[in-house]
Amino acid sequence: MAPAAEKDLISHVQLSEPMKLPPGTSLHTFQTFIDRVIQCCGAENVSIISKCDKLVDGHYMNPCKGHDMHAIYDRDYFLASAVICPRDVPEVQMLMRLCNEFEVPAWPFSIGRNTGYGGAAPRVSGSVCLDLGRHMNRVLDVNVEGAFALVEPGVTFFDLHEYLEEHDLRKHVWLDVPDLGGGSIIGNAVERGVGYTPYGDHWMMHCGLEIVLPNGELVRTGMGALPDPTIPAAEGLRPDQQPGNRCWQLFNYGFGPYNDGIFTQSSLGIVVKMGIWLMPNPGGYQAYMITLPRDNDLAAAMDIIRPLRMQMVLQNVPTLRHILLDAAVHGPKSSYTAKSEPLDDADLDEIAKKLDLGRWNFYGAVYGPEPIRSVLLSVIKTSFLSIPGSRFFLPEDRHEPNSVLRTRANTLQGIPSVDELKWVDWLPNGAHLFFSPITKISGADAEAQYAITKKRCTEAGLDFIGTFVVGMREMHHIVCIVFDREDPKSRTKAHWLIRTLVDDCAKHGWGEYRTHLALMDQIANTYNFNDGAQMKLNEQIKNALDPKGILAPGKNGIWPKGYNKATWVI
Amino acid sequence: MAPAAEKDLISHVQLSEPMKLPPGTSLHTFQTFIDRVIQCCGAENVSIISKCDKLVDGHYMNPCKGHDMHAIYDRDYFLASAVICPRDVPEVQMLMRLCNEFEVPAWPFSIGRNTGYGGAAPRVSGSVCLDLGRHMNRVLDVNVEGAFALVEPGVTFFDLHEYLEEHDLRKHVWLDVPDLGGGSIIGNAVERGVGYTPYGDHWMMHCGLEIVLPNGELVRTGMGALPDPTIPAAEGLRPDQQPGNRCWQLFNYGFGPYNDGIFTQSSLGIVVKMGIWLMPNPGGYQAYMITLPRDNDLAAAMDIIRPLRMQMVLQNVPTLRHILLDAAVHGPKSSYTAKSEPLDDADLDEIAKKLDLGRWNFYGAVYGPEPIRSVLLSVIKTSFLSIPGSRFFLPEDRHEPNSVLRTRANTLQGIPSVDELKWVDWLPNGAHLFFSPITKISGADAEAQYAITKKRCTEAGLDFIGTFVVGMREMHHIVCIVFDREDPKSRTKAHWLIRTLVDDCAKHGWGEYRTHLALMDQIANTYNFNDGAQMKLNEQIKNALDPKGILAPGKNGIWPKGYNKATWVI
Ligand SMILES: Cc1cc2nc3c(=O)[nH]c(=O)nc-3n(C[C@H](O)[C@H](O)[C@H](O)COP(=O)(O)OP(=O)(O)OC[C@H]3O[C@@H](n4cnc5c(N)ncnc54)[C@H](O)[C@@H]3O)c2cc1C
Ligand SMILES: Cc1cc2nc3c(=O)[nH]c(=O)nc-3n(C[C@H](O)[C@H](O)[C@H](O)COP(=O)(O)OP(=O)(O)OC[C@H]3O[C@@H](n4cnc5c(N)ncnc54)[C@H](O)[C@@H]3O)c2cc1C
Repeated sequence: MAPAAEKDLISHVQLSEPMKLPPGTSLHTFQTFIDRVIQCCGAENVSIISKCDKLVDGHYMNPCKGHDMHAIYDRDYFLASAVICPRDVPEVQMLMRLCNEFEVPAWPFSIGRNTGYGGAAPRVSGSVCLDLGRHMNRVLDVNVEGAFALVEPGVTFFDLHEYLEEHDLRKHVWLDVPDLGGGSIIGNAVERGVGYTPYGDHWMMHCGLEIVLPNGELVRTGMGALPDPTIPAAEGLRPDQQPGNRCWQLFNYGFGPYNDGIFTQSSLGIVVKMGIWLMPNPGGYQAYMITLPRDNDLAAAMDIIRPLRMQMVLQNVPTLRHILLDAAVHGPKSSYTAKSEPLDDADLDEIAKKLDLGRWNFYGAVYGPEPIRSVLLSVIKTSFLSIPGSRFFLPEDRHEPNSVLRTRANTLQGIPSVDELKWVDWLPNGAHLFFSPITKISGADAEAQYAITKKRCTEAGLDFIGTFVVGMREMHHIVCIVFDREDPKSRTKAHWLIRTLVDDCAKHGWGEYRTHLALMDQIANTYNFNDGAQMKLNEQIKNALDPKGILAPGKNGIWPKGYNKATWVI
Repeated sequence: MAPAAEKDLISHVQLSEPMKLPPGTSLHTFQTFIDRVIQCCGAENVSIISKCDKLVDGHYMNPCKGHDMHAIYDRDYFLASAVICPRDVPEVQMLMRLCNEFEVPAWPFSIGRNTGYGGAAPRVSGSVCLDLGRHMNRVLDVNVEGAFALVEPGVTFFDLHEYLEEHDLRKHVWLDVPDLGGGSIIGNAVERGVGYTPYGDHWMMHCGLEIVLPNGELVRTGMGALPDPTIPAAEGLRPDQQPGNRCWQLFNYGFGPYNDGIFTQSSLGIVVKMGIWLMPNPGGYQAYMITLPRDNDLAAAMDIIRPLRMQMVLQNVPTLRHILLDAAVHGPKSSYTAKSEPLDDADLDEIAKKLDLGRWNFYGAVYGPEPIRSVLLSVIKTSFLSIPGSRFFLPEDRHEPNSVLRTRANTLQGIPSVDELKWVDWLPNGAHLFFSPITKISGADAEAQYAITKKRCTEAGLDFIGTFVVGMREMHHIVCIVFDREDPKSRTKAHWLIRTLVDDCAKHGWGEYRTHLALMDQIANTYNFNDGAQMKLNEQIKNALDPKGILAPGKNGIWPKGYNKATWVI
């Protein structure tokens, strides 16, 4: 009956007209889709971001789920139509099938604390965001003998750490954590994020995935593709419930093409389980800091770091931090100065003096029994202390509140915190963007990249805040662009700054390892060797696995064939 | 004119009628194809394996190029129609285009010393084999500061080692080598082969690829996709000649999906350049051997190895070798016994006594300055020597000719040799097949896998010869099935043995990491979680990148859509 149907429709509209519809989707289709989603996941697990809602950022501990908490455009520029919280793997599979049926794009995230890189927002407004971590948050296994864990998307670094603590397992195995502990172990690894112990390259340390493909199929990679008939059976268990092969978390490659990498920084699948290697408790540990007094000590330090890191004398992923990163952890800009313009050398010297730190500060740790540690430490000390004025500190040497060294002494042994979140408040209404180019570990390169980024920061009227995160043979130079999210001018400056830096760096042959939604097209376009051959390859694979382009369209600059790329890129 | 055309055809037939034509290709089409290939690569770089040829195996130093030197079927079972040696990257691209045009399958190899896994033979008879290493064999770069090399397919471990020696670079960087030095660095890495220094996982240690896709497109992966405008220009240089980004060999992941893995054990592309990390000279080195007297010391040793390896006290990829592997290096079976049946415990004890070795022999090395080495060695000694009767040897303790420890003291510091080739001659007309399942590093698992493989070897009337190669958290158990290639019965037994072992091991949840052409289908089929979901994914990608299925059809069990899989699998 028409009137009844219309009434239904009206009540729906009232309940759920979203602020943004998926592209090309009518309100009616959207609502039919949402009805089907509700049948799948339950109404309590579906929330429409409706026309009447106010977009509230929340804060790190309680982040918003449909837009970017640190938006650099308006909050509704990257905005979900709805947030859906699937309760298990079959629901994720069903959601992929529904998205295909209705041609509605979906943007999966695990926790949504991806600040500086887009937070929980989708690239295409009107996408449905899939909040995987809300319900799928079990630590499925911690295996001490094999030193690994198997986790679901919602397991944060804090969660796994607490699990280890509760079960008294840290005497056997340590976790690797990024600066903040609230992120998802899966979310961070699939974005190829980094931490600071010897296991800092999270992607390298993953082992085995379970993935829902855009067509809804469920795949286990590596040895996970091999059933183990000796494991007590699993009569009637769904595939995702079946116990994994005993080597699934021990050996990554399996047999045939090694596919795992294509599921990172990608729109080819939803990772629903991941193995991660834990570091065997090294039987001894010592964190330290070395302060370097002068701006141009950067170059000398880098040329000391390179050989030591490659030799594994520097066993962990150490960082060389600019004074303002540490200063910002201790207090906002206003606590140091009344200036609004960027600080100059004299200001920085004064701050360094006040905090008893260097212009650059190096944080590392040694691992192992005492005799090993002392050999390593003596090499490290001798090498760095050749820089005039440099000083060596142990955590117990520092007595200031919120000592960065004391925080890092935890981080570098895998104990998570949120202490470093404080630097985001350098400016009022502090928000941030990460600019993160890859560089050779060398004095000349570090100096050149620092000069360029610092110059542009100054032109933008912003302070340079940054750190060099030292991998095996390269550095992730992480420039923390802090802005005032309530001040449109500040946002514009930050946005101008990062766009300019991407171009500047491309001219030097430097590219970024990861980026914010707003920069994905620009950066993808710098990786354009041989007429964009890599992008063509990426698009071919994308179109084959997701012909309707429903999973994370636009992610990392990859646009499915149904999207007119020219009109979508920004 | 018909008669002239016919004459042409006849002269061609005489010159070049191949023993096997590509499937579905007429002789006429094949000859037109070969004409076009000759126009591309020059007649001197094309050889037809003609009806009149005798298939000669050659030997390791001079291997045959169109069939398997260690064939387990008849020599012509896996046989190329022709071998083509492209001279450069554009020729490889052109060959891909020609193969597409004529729908002729191509099987690329770098050197063709892949014995035990199929040698230089193609999976589909009649394929053209592309001998990449013949001309494309330059060491393009050895960078000491970044500790890496950039190589072409034809660069063998010997070649790069000699390059390091000639340029006096071993004081700065070491290579990692497998047991034999004659393989291709690229060919070995893309098959995910292993060596024995701390850099033994060759695929993990690769950094950056240049690849020709099946459609002839040229891609650089990782940072290689980012041009570097600061490098002195390259006016008019072809894409493959352009200097790479300075971070190409420093950082693997680049931006967006990390694609490299899909080009391993795969039929998705031809690798024409690869970066490989070299190990900084550790500043000290000591190889050693620990002999274990009894068969069942295996379990105890494994449970000692696991924690030491995970802690990196065992820094390298060590091996625990069965007595017969070492014995076979010292001499053929006939030099020990007149028996033809498998040796029993008493025989093995006698051989061990004669060689002054254990039933199992553990080979490792420590790296670094003296104080580090001595701490590590003392832990290693104390741990292993808890096994009654075990003994510790340094290379200088061994005085026999062809001492395995002395060879391994070279291998474990990256100095290549062919010494270990000798075990292949355990039987007359010695040939071999590798059976290589992945196992957990544990006494119970090693014991179980050893029992099963040994039992089946005995049933086949063959001796168990094997070694456990210890990775980070798993072992590659390499069973060396030696047979007499001129004795059809011996071949049949070897073939029966490996097929049976694949099934046996699958029943225990054990799968192989790599295999011979003849076993690819069977093994791929064991990785069948969730109704073969991984294979479906592999096929989707294969069909997208290679719609005509011209590149290495059937490799690792992946059949392109144009092939009727049911009729092709063996
Ligand atoms: C002060 C500060 C310090 C920081 N320090 C670090 C640091 O040291 N190292 C570091 O790496 N980062 C750092 N970050 C950035 C960020 O907080 C972390 O990377 C965080 O882990 C990312 O958020 P998340 O884990 O909630 O990921 P999510 O937001 O859940 O996911 C991020 C993205 O990954 C993809 N994704 C997530 N889950 C899945 C899935 N299951 N399947 C498929 N795709 C998926 C999606 O594209 C998603 O948008 C820092 C941020 C701040 C504010
Ligand atoms: C006594 C003995 C000991 C051995 N010990 C070891 C060992 O310690 N470790 C080990 O790993 N192996 C070992 N092997 C096996 C083998 O010798 C090596 O793996 C060898 O490196 C493989 O041969 P190759 O390098 O010539 O590869 P190739 O024959 O050139 O290539 C092998 C396969 O890889 C693929 N491929 C090669 N090049 C390319 C390319 N450029 N693009 C795309 N695909 C390509 C093709 O499928 C090809 O068939 C041993 C063999 C013997 C006989």
